[in-house]
Amino acid sequence: MSKIVMKFGGTSVGTLDKITNVAKRIQNEKEKGHDIVVVVSAMGKTTDDLNLLASKITDSPVKREMDMLLSTGEQVTMSLLAIQLNSLGVEALSLTGWQAGIQTDDVHRNAKISQLDGNKINEFLEGNKVVIVAGFQGISLTGEITTLGRGGSDTTAVAVAAAIDAEICDIYTDVDGIYTSDPRYVLDARKLEQLEYDEMLELANLGAGVLHPRAVEFAKNYKIPLRVRSSYEETEGTILKEEVDVENNLVVRGVAFESDIVRLTIEYEVPFNGSLASIFTTLANNNIDVDIIVQSIVEGMKPTVSFSIKKESLSEAIEVLETNKKTLGFTFADFEVGLAKVSIVGSGMVSNPGVAAQMFDRLSKENIPVKMVSTSEIKVSVVVPQGNMIQAANALHNEFELAISR
Amino acid sequence: MSKIVMKFGGTSVGTLDKITNVAKRIQNEKEKGHDIVVVVSAMGKTTDDLNLLASKITDSPVKREMDMLLSTGEQVTMSLLAIQLNSLGVEALSLTGWQAGIQTDDVHRNAKISQLDGNKINEFLEGNKVVIVAGFQGISLTGEITTLGRGGSDTTAVAVAAAIDAEICDIYTDVDGIYTSDPRYVLDARKLEQLEYDEMLELANLGAGVLHPRAVEFAKNYKIPLRVRSSYEETEGTILKEEVDVENNLVVRGVAFESDIVRLTIEYEVPFNGSLASIFTTLANNNIDVDIIVQSIVEGMKPTVSFSIKKESLSEAIEVLETNKKTLGFTFADFEVGLAKVSIVGSGMVSNPGVAAQMFDRLSKENIPVKMVSTSEIKVSVVVPQGNMIQAANALHNEFELAISR
Repeated sequence: MSKIVMKFGGTSVGTLDKITNVAKRIQNEKEKGHDIVVVVSAMGKTTDDLNLLASKITDSPVKREMDMLLSTGEQVTMSLLAIQLNSLGVEALSLTGWQAGIQTDDVHRNAKISQLDGNKINEFLEGNKVVIVAGFQGISLTGEITTLGRGGSDTTAVAVAAAIDAEICDIYTDVDGIYTSDPRYVLDARKLEQLEYDEMLELANLGAGVLHPRAVEFAKNYKIPLRVRSSYEETEGTILKEEVDVENNLVVRGVAFESDIVRLTIEYEVPFNGSLASIFTTLANNNIDVDIIVQSIVEGMKPTVSFSIKKESLSEAIEVLETNKKTLGFTFADFEVGLAKVSIVGSGMVSNPGVAAQMFDRLSKENIPVKMVSTSEIKVSVVVPQGNMIQAANALHNEFELAISR
Repeated sequence: MSKIVMKFGGTSVGTLDKITNVAKRIQNEKEKGHDIVVVVSAMGKTTDDLNLLASKITDSPVKREMDMLLSTGEQVTMSLLAIQLNSLGVEALSLTGWQAGIQTDDVHRNAKISQLDGNKINEFLEGNKVVIVAGFQGISLTGEITTLGRGGSDTTAVAVAAAIDAEICDIYTDVDGIYTSDPRYVLDARKLEQLEYDEMLELANLGAGVLHPRAVEFAKNYKIPLRVRSSYEETEGTILKEEVDVENNLVVRGVAFESDIVRLTIEYEVPFNGSLASIFTTLANNNIDVDIIVQSIVEGMKPTVSFSIKKESLSEAIEVLETNKKTLGFTFADFEVGLAKVSIVGSGMVSNPGVAAQMFDRLSKENIPVKMVSTSEIKVSVVVPQGNMIQAANALHNEFELAISR
């Protein structure tokens, strides 16, 4: 008998009917002879509703108590699911984070799993029970309830899979797999059968939004195959693993894009490397995510550095920088809004140096100006005007022949 | 500094505004210099709503999972209250049943508190924090979440008060104290300043509905003064203790009444005591509460026994009895619906043998037929036609001069 972990997100358990649907799905897998652990999120918008309740009391609720509040969400889902499974004749029981032994650090609202002893779960599995574990939550060393932050249920699922040495961790969601691009905007986007962890990480960070990066990292570290599947349809989904099969070895596997990017450019009176580091440290300390950084030092000109941030962080970033202008020693040169980022991702790039050139060439043929460039071993990102984002994504999807299954 | 426990029921914390109100009430008490532990129920109809959700899945949800589900209710209240208190500048933290160390047996949905170690709560009190404890819930020896059944939050409050050796346990509710009778029907009913635990037990069992009997028993065992107070008004309420002051020593302290009583009468072919016990054992095993039992054995007649149950249990009681008719050896003689029970309660009765006679006399003058009678040391109950219930209650309230404060 193989062990599998099935994770269902908030949308998949949003109503009693959906919970019934999920229960039948579990029953099917159970009847195939698997040992099953289920990880669930809070129903639908429950977490948002609880956040809203607290925000009506104060803008800055105590974090410890927010964890106490939010952790009830999964507890409701898991008990209803257990009730449903038992009423279908499938023996099942639910476990809170602390009952399942999900140990975390003590950072309320953004805790990290530090240890997960699979013994308790294994014991129940040996008793032929379906074990339902609350996602998103754990317990600190001092016995406090913690939550893992957004995407935490995915992380719980992978951590549980690692702890019980599961064969696979299935993430059920409202999409049926990972696509070569967003099918809403790139009409010939195609579902991938397989994808490497690192590729997924680049896609997730770029806004594919299906899996939380932390969960993918966890899966990568523990070499747990992750499968993204539809909660509603019986399709195969996309499997994430360390290395995909050779026949699928496309050079580029996906085109991701993200709107609402802002580029800031600052200018120094004198070249001073220490100051550059200070700027980004200051921004990081204020929780402003900087994405692409481009520095340019041209003889005879003042040195400049450009970097991109999300539009929503702009006012805060400007405030932080203005406050520290004097100590950091720079002046604002420029900032440009209305930009977007388009990226191509694929582990095959590392041995194909022409990929970036091919990308720039196509964008140039499409008359799309490139404002910034950033490259990694498995990714090339460009910043372009937002009005050209969809055009660029479609062009690149076509350029690298992603619509064609092989 | 004296320690006090403040318990707020579901109605008192039914909305965010009411939670704010409760927080200010707590702040007031804190500013008087008390060490404060707060016990809360789930907000308003939350528990009913959760029960309803489960009942939409199945008629017989697994009890373990129902406890998992229901215990979220108090957790939401306590965290919101903690957030509110902290935002008012009152340091507070909330504890679930298991975090507070509320050990229970393993009877899901109707667990009993077996042990409560006050050390953890005391530790936080010494840190000058208001400690908020979830009512109604605990943890079994095997680490399962349990709930205490209806009225459980009152019991939690008293158990906490006993564990930390509190000076008083204040039960805040939507009435402002215990009355000599139900003021909705007995217009000159008067609020009592003091009442004995045992009297309250009789009143609670008879449907006064303000305090759960188990909580009163607990308070009696540990000699914790209990005070019933209004959540909305700053009034003194009613204090329950072991012996009330002499000047308040009314013979009768309250008139209680309860509608929807059914009387069943069964007939035996031969007198057989064993069978009588068997009938009530069988009913008890099927969770049918029998209240008054009257047996009559008259020379030359078949022996009969009459007993009263609640109307809602009638169909189940008949089913249970019919199923076991043969083994139990009886035939149905009669059953009468549309009855009510009216009781007078007072610890002074034990030394006043004329009280019952005075009661019957007044009922007779009022032309109210008495169908059954039951007496204890501090209570006399009669079963009368439901149409006479309010009349009987008012007559007895008048007969024993309960409207007059002394």
